[in-house]
Amino acid sequence: MRRLRIIGIGAGDPGFVTVEAVEALREVEAFFVLDKPGPASDLTRAREAIVDRFVPDDPGRLVYVPDPPRDRDPADAAAYEAAVVAWRDERVRRLRAAIEGELGPDGVGGFLVWGDPSLYDGTIRMVEDLLAGGLEADHDVVAGVSAVHALTARHRIPLNRVAGAVQITTGRRLAQAWPDGVDDVVVMLDSHLECRAYADDDVDVYWGAYLGTPDELLVSGRLGEVLPEIERVRAQARERHGWVMDTYLLRRAPLDV
Amino acid sequence: MRRLRIIGIGAGDPGFVTVEAVEALREVEAFFVLDKPGPASDLTRAREAIVDRFVPDDPGRLVYVPDPPRDRDPADAAAYEAAVVAWRDERVRRLRAAIEGELGPDGVGGFLVWGDPSLYDGTIRMVEDLLAGGLEADHDVVAGVSAVHALTARHRIPLNRVAGAVQITTGRRLAQAWPDGVDDVVVMLDSHLECRAYADDDVDVYWGAYLGTPDELLVSGRLGEVLPEIERVRAQARERHGWVMDTYLLRRAPLDV
Repeated sequence: MRRLRIIGIGAGDPGFVTVEAVEALREVEAFFVLDKPGPASDLTRAREAIVDRFVPDDPGRLVYVPDPPRDRDPADAAAYEAAVVAWRDERVRRLRAAIEGELGPDGVGGFLVWGDPSLYDGTIRMVEDLLAGGLEADHDVVAGVSAVHALTARHRIPLNRVAGAVQITTGRRLAQAWPDGVDDVVVMLDSHLECRAYADDDVDVYWGAYLGTPDELLVSGRLGEVLPEIERVRAQARERHGWVMDTYLLRRAPLDV
Repeated sequence: MRRLRIIGIGAGDPGFVTVEAVEALREVEAFFVLDKPGPASDLTRAREAIVDRFVPDDPGRLVYVPDPPRDRDPADAAAYEAAVVAWRDERVRRLRAAIEGELGPDGVGGFLVWGDPSLYDGTIRMVEDLLAGGLEADHDVVAGVSAVHALTARHRIPLNRVAGAVQITTGRRLAQAWPDGVDDVVVMLDSHLECRAYADDDVDVYWGAYLGTPDELLVSGRLGEVLPEIERVRAQARERHGWVMDTYLLRRAPLDV
């Protein structure tokens, strides 16, 4: 039976790669890489570097599958929905063709996923779509060190407070409101630093960008006090790299100090 | 300068150990292990096995520090608070004596933490207490694969739904109420399967025990339907091992299927 391995390679630092992931990298015959324009290209190169580092001899082929274009400016909600469905279908069609072309009936294919495959990543769903569409394969998921754990490790802080709860959410959701019922919130996929809305509140921030890479940036402190620094280093970095990938923890009104 | 490394060794499976953790394990001269009675002893043996596997030659010493006894039956809230403070102080005193006895002024000590050190673990706070108490040392944190990511990888599921939020909480909190504003909830530290309260609701569960170990147990499905199975295998396992460590994700009223 053909196998597809969804491999979490950790949040940036090659040191975050697990022993299980290294074993998986060595087993894979072909890695399928959706090649997107823009920031993703840097991440694609970083993925290649990880394969090269851990599989120096006879690494699996890197098979680039161009991500289909997507209508980013649909006329209305129905058109948006239709555009997403068409894009997903076309992506699955291209991937299936690549997989069936590259892997024999007992071949092992791989997908390299930044961080952990469970967190704000579409690869698991994409593979499920492939299987639902009739591709014959087993699949498994190799857990990785996510950006959440990279962030807290680099800041040397616990994620939760004693017996407390933590919410992981998106910038878009934070922009609507502070999540109900929690004082500790990890924000991901936030291209607008929505935490600005809480700069006058009793909130600490632990911010990190390009976590685990040589370009890593860390800022922490009272949100109202360090926000200008975060805005400054973030803008400079975005200028330099052309993109920024950051994550932060907001901790409101400390309870257990 | 003396250094203390807080090393996440992943949630059970030696394959979850990262390259950075292996490097840290090889550098450490003495691992300080708080030896607790009960379930923790199995976990202590599992930690020893990981050190043995990754540092077969000249591994760091394992230095066992008996966890001080703690008054588990205080008369009232003030007595409870005082008991916790006394226990923490005594633990720090014992650890400091062990560290100063075992490590030279440039020595490297380590703490082995199950999963990731940021998630429901007291080691980071304990080390901060040591430093606040005057122990001279640098410290760092090595991120690990947490039980949350082990759970989702073994079930091959995303943690969040598309653009959704996830809350990580405790059994005690879930017993009070379903968390406000989220439909996806990871429950940890739940010795009573508090999810029973939601068995009649439109909820799926992804449950795992002894994750990453040869004794791993996984059950998933409609909560109301699979709860009897979870209760049964959990009771059997607790009988066999004398303890159980489990985690689960509750997913309410699917949104994006």
